[in-house]
Amino acid sequence: MRRKEFQVENATDIKEFLASMSFGFLGTSGSDYPHITPVNFVYFEDAVYFHGARAGQKMKDIAGSEKVSFAVAREFALIPSYFSDSEIACPATAFFKSVLIYGRAKIVESLDEKARVLTAFMEKLQPQGGYVPLDPADPKYKELKSVSVVKIEIESMTAKFKFGQNQKEEKWNAIAGQLEKRNEPGDAETVENMRKTCPFGEL
Amino acid sequence: MRRKEFQVENATDIKEFLASMSFGFLGTSGSDYPHITPVNFVYFEDAVYFHGARAGQKMKDIAGSEKVSFAVAREFALIPSYFSDSEIACPATAFFKSVLIYGRAKIVESLDEKARVLTAFMEKLQPQGGYVPLDPADPKYKELKSVSVVKIEIESMTAKFKFGQNQKEEKWNAIAGQLEKRNEPGDAETVENMRKTCPFGEL
Repeated sequence: MRRKEFQVENATDIKEFLASMSFGFLGTSGSDYPHITPVNFVYFEDAVYFHGARAGQKMKDIAGSEKVSFAVAREFALIPSYFSDSEIACPATAFFKSVLIYGRAKIVESLDEKARVLTAFMEKLQPQGGYVPLDPADPKYKELKSVSVVKIEIESMTAKFKFGQNQKEEKWNAIAGQLEKRNEPGDAETVENMRKTCPFGEL
Repeated sequence: MRRKEFQVENATDIKEFLASMSFGFLGTSGSDYPHITPVNFVYFEDAVYFHGARAGQKMKDIAGSEKVSFAVAREFALIPSYFSDSEIACPATAFFKSVLIYGRAKIVESLDEKARVLTAFMEKLQPQGGYVPLDPADPKYKELKSVSVVKIEIESMTAKFKFGQNQKEEKWNAIAGQLEKRNEPGDAETVENMRKTCPFGEL
């Protein structure tokens, strides 16, 4: 996953991908081992936010070191070896999008900021509405005080979208054709992403 | 995600979940920040294995410290707040399965072991076959020498399956009923998992 040909520089593409994903993986430095926690998140005002209870390993870790990483990935399709080679297993691979962020985790203390962030959360994950607007002055939302909201101030963000850009044209065509033929859930979307990232120009 | 009521002790349930998931997130200790890399994996002979090129950040990190974490998670359903509460947004949640492993990463050097592990990989991710069996003596597979295979020797493995076990019976029933009514992809499977983990006995 380190090859440069998969790197995405277009910020709009990266943000669209983050908006489409409901959860990611927070990396914190524990006592001895790195610690990973899956969390729902929202990318909002150029930062990543997540929330949770005040207790728990990730909050302890952040209190110890605010330097965190955050990864989001989706596998679009497993690509069998025989899509491009009739003999050996080595070409078996997966097409995916992934984003890796490094940053500093900061506890959000302001009730107004918490309400704004959690509103962005709800707009992302429950766009159909169906709740009273979040308002720190509303006694129904007194729980806002006890929920922890954490902001990751982003220091770097890189993305890789791997959709066969490293293939020779003949193999690329074979894979796209086989995906169209297989037509399992996600395959059409995978071919669409292959076309968007195609290294051979317009097809 | 730290509540004890979501913890799974049944090893078969955990292994079945790991077998159903094609990729996970490797946590390594970088120079300054924890580092996360999504990787395809196989759980095989009580260890986690992944492979990749010899170069790259994760291999550098492992050379510095073999203490790693590995996380696998799947979100089964977003549960809107109004499934259990007509007013406030707070009950909005997600039902998921997650596994967190701590262990030691060891580079696999033996070509025979590499071939066995990569065979297990193929059997998991390409069960339909369609390739010549992996054999270190076969010149077609001379690439076996240059691919890195890493074993995570597991020191601890914990799992959380969150499917509403913390809900009161009335809310639990409301959520299960609404999921059945909504019937989006994954919803039927979510209800099945709710029933399996139901805290109120047989339903």
